[in-house]
Amino acid sequence: MSAAAEPSTVYRAAHGVVDGVWVDAPWLAVDASGAVTRTGVVGDRSEPTDAVVRDLGPVMLLPGLVNAHSHAFQRAIRGATHRRGASDPSSFWSWREAMYRCADALTPESIYAITRRAFGEMLRAGITCVGEFHYIHHQPGGQPYDDANALSLQVVAAARDVGIRLVLLEVLYLRADHRTPALPEQQRFCDAGVDAYLRRVDDLRSRGIQVGLAPHSVRAVPRPALEAVARYGHAHGLPLHTHLSEQPRENEQCQAEHGRSPTAVFAEAGYCERPAGFTAVHAVHTSADDQRQLGGQHVCACPTTEADLGDGIVPAVDLREAGVHVALGSDSNAVIDLVQEARLLEMGERLRGQARLRLNDEQGALGLGLLRAATETGAWSLGQADRSGRLGVGRPFDAFTVGLDDPFFHGIAPPHLLDALMCAGTSASVRHVFVGGVARV
Amino acid sequence: MSAAAEPSTVYRAAHGVVDGVWVDAPWLAVDASGAVTRTGVVGDRSEPTDAVVRDLGPVMLLPGLVNAHSHAFQRAIRGATHRRGASDPSSFWSWREAMYRCADALTPESIYAITRRAFGEMLRAGITCVGEFHYIHHQPGGQPYDDANALSLQVVAAARDVGIRLVLLEVLYLRADHRTPALPEQQRFCDAGVDAYLRRVDDLRSRGIQVGLAPHSVRAVPRPALEAVARYGHAHGLPLHTHLSEQPRENEQCQAEHGRSPTAVFAEAGYCERPAGFTAVHAVHTSADDQRQLGGQHVCACPTTEADLGDGIVPAVDLREAGVHVALGSDSNAVIDLVQEARLLEMGERLRGQARLRLNDEQGALGLGLLRAATETGAWSLGQADRSGRLGVGRPFDAFTVGLDDPFFHGIAPPHLLDALMCAGTSASVRHVFVGGVARV
Repeated sequence: MSAAAEPSTVYRAAHGVVDGVWVDAPWLAVDASGAVTRTGVVGDRSEPTDAVVRDLGPVMLLPGLVNAHSHAFQRAIRGATHRRGASDPSSFWSWREAMYRCADALTPESIYAITRRAFGEMLRAGITCVGEFHYIHHQPGGQPYDDANALSLQVVAAARDVGIRLVLLEVLYLRADHRTPALPEQQRFCDAGVDAYLRRVDDLRSRGIQVGLAPHSVRAVPRPALEAVARYGHAHGLPLHTHLSEQPRENEQCQAEHGRSPTAVFAEAGYCERPAGFTAVHAVHTSADDQRQLGGQHVCACPTTEADLGDGIVPAVDLREAGVHVALGSDSNAVIDLVQEARLLEMGERLRGQARLRLNDEQGALGLGLLRAATETGAWSLGQADRSGRLGVGRPFDAFTVGLDDPFFHGIAPPHLLDALMCAGTSASVRHVFVGGVARV
Repeated sequence: MSAAAEPSTVYRAAHGVVDGVWVDAPWLAVDASGAVTRTGVVGDRSEPTDAVVRDLGPVMLLPGLVNAHSHAFQRAIRGATHRRGASDPSSFWSWREAMYRCADALTPESIYAITRRAFGEMLRAGITCVGEFHYIHHQPGGQPYDDANALSLQVVAAARDVGIRLVLLEVLYLRADHRTPALPEQQRFCDAGVDAYLRRVDDLRSRGIQVGLAPHSVRAVPRPALEAVARYGHAHGLPLHTHLSEQPRENEQCQAEHGRSPTAVFAEAGYCERPAGFTAVHAVHTSADDQRQLGGQHVCACPTTEADLGDGIVPAVDLREAGVHVALGSDSNAVIDLVQEARLLEMGERLRGQARLRLNDEQGALGLGLLRAATETGAWSLGQADRSGRLGVGRPFDAFTVGLDDPFFHGIAPPHLLDALMCAGTSASVRHVFVGGVARV
């Protein structure tokens, strides 16, 4: 180990999850670059003696949460769509009108402000990496800004200023549906075509921004453009994300256009070719055939949003049996709490199946399995598997702690602490948050 | 107004719900006995000038939450039943075995301690009144303590020492089911018969304790005893509570014994005779006929527990259409948060119906309707309608505040604050809690 890599700080905690395993009294040595250089258990011989020791106290130390699907700007309508009146947001589609009105009014400055607010709430909730599914690109009406990536760069600036890791899931949007060009309120989402979109992606990548490719949905992107995006993604090793089968109407329109399900269209367009290269967001209304085709890929479930919008319950048990890896997202950001998302993923399946212990892992543990969905699987989905989602040697110290002095945890035996958090808790007990070794909360 | 009733304190808040109505800048005058004597809006002429003014700051001031169904001792197994291993709590019924092991090990001292802990968490979550559905009465094996109400009195002491209002829903439990006498682990729940039970109730009432009558379920109590309890309840104006149709097996056993549904058995035994005198807890697996029979009565939904135990979604929209009033409970106390219970009541219906705005009131407001379920309806269900569940003149100042300086609320316009709390929030933003004018948090 070179002198430069000598640990500068050793963090100790009462309990934690290191290298995917529950550990009592873990320590992690973190060097000046913010990387974990060694790990162990307090009292062992390998703990560095020349480092500053920081005991985090009576906490669980967990890998930073990874939010695989966010629309940060929708934080602006939290609480504002639950009332009948001039509008009547009593369906997904009428809710969408309220959301579009919000999107249409945004400026570069307000996009920065609301995104910064949402990302700040994420950090405080233990989220250290976010995939922002960003689709507001141009001026109202569709005219590009002088810099065609002006709004994407506001999202990047908000993440940088808050200190959260970002994967910019840059969205391609081309039409209202297969019969209808973009509505006026959708025009600022739209590029002139897939080539103009990929030029913007080239530009973002040339600036060193972590990018994923996100055709919005089978509704908003015709098949040749879907294929072009997949080719570009595979050529450059970029993650591919899309909204998929969130609402029955989307499936019906897809049948009318393509004579097959959205999953089948994406599979035929090449999205499932690269192992773990594709993330289907929602996948609520998917058949057993669809689920088989998604085997080896990811589904991102967003349970609080899927309940809020009346989408339905993600069939996480069936997906897992089909070999699909389920990640989690905060989506509309009405709720920003991946602990609740994980809990409600399990609880939705308990309601659907009228049974308990639905997503337990091979060892029977549920808390660890739900934590994995909220960390490792999300990182994998965002193409960040070697960086985020896990605490271990050679990785950045992206972590959060949960205060066990919260009365919520009083009297709970250590082996049940993580199950209690993931099956009954919220992110309200988050205490510290670190990104790349820097304390952010 | 007599001198003794002069207000001693005027509380001001940024916003609030007073007399069931959203108010900006409300004030409430509270006298030395803890009762509200006058209310108004800051700046009006009626605000007392001779009182101490306490500005609660940037908060919403809301009536104290009423938790209509709790098993406090089950707080002891929070997080402990989500793992396969020696036991396999993968169904409601195998979960119950873990819960029974916990119940069997409790002593008077540990019942006091765990109940105090649970009630303390309730207070911190804004709950000022709880209906404790208490069924552990006797020593392990069934031998009564020297005072046959020894354990009930521990619950009463815990509530008193914490400072939460209690309605003791004293449980009658007589058998495992219609074919099976009480199992060994159920014997400490059981009285010798309905007469012995009613003697205990007489004794509790003579001590001035607020009591409700709670035959545990149609499974655990034969019909003649159900009838005797209803007669006693009606004669003394006591609320009647029972578990009803939580699990399909309960319905099947009831059909085998009675040839009718649990609801029909309770209706025929007289439980629906007195308007609003009866509360059916859960009512998940009820038919349209059942729901009609429950019209004018209460159902207590416990959504976090009903998800945890794989019970199913309470059909709250159908119940409301049948004229049933839906209250809320924390039940197993894995989660202690009536804001989440209210939110998940609505969200469960959105998932079930795949639509939005399911429980909005006549004026279209959802937040107020959900708040009412968590306050007024619960108070009514517990026979406390004239005391709890509402802030207004002549009532105790039982209230809590929600801190609008929580980043969760940043940028939300005042008309949407309550919808944001009830449709996306948790109790983590509770700041102050008052019971009878005494600050408890």
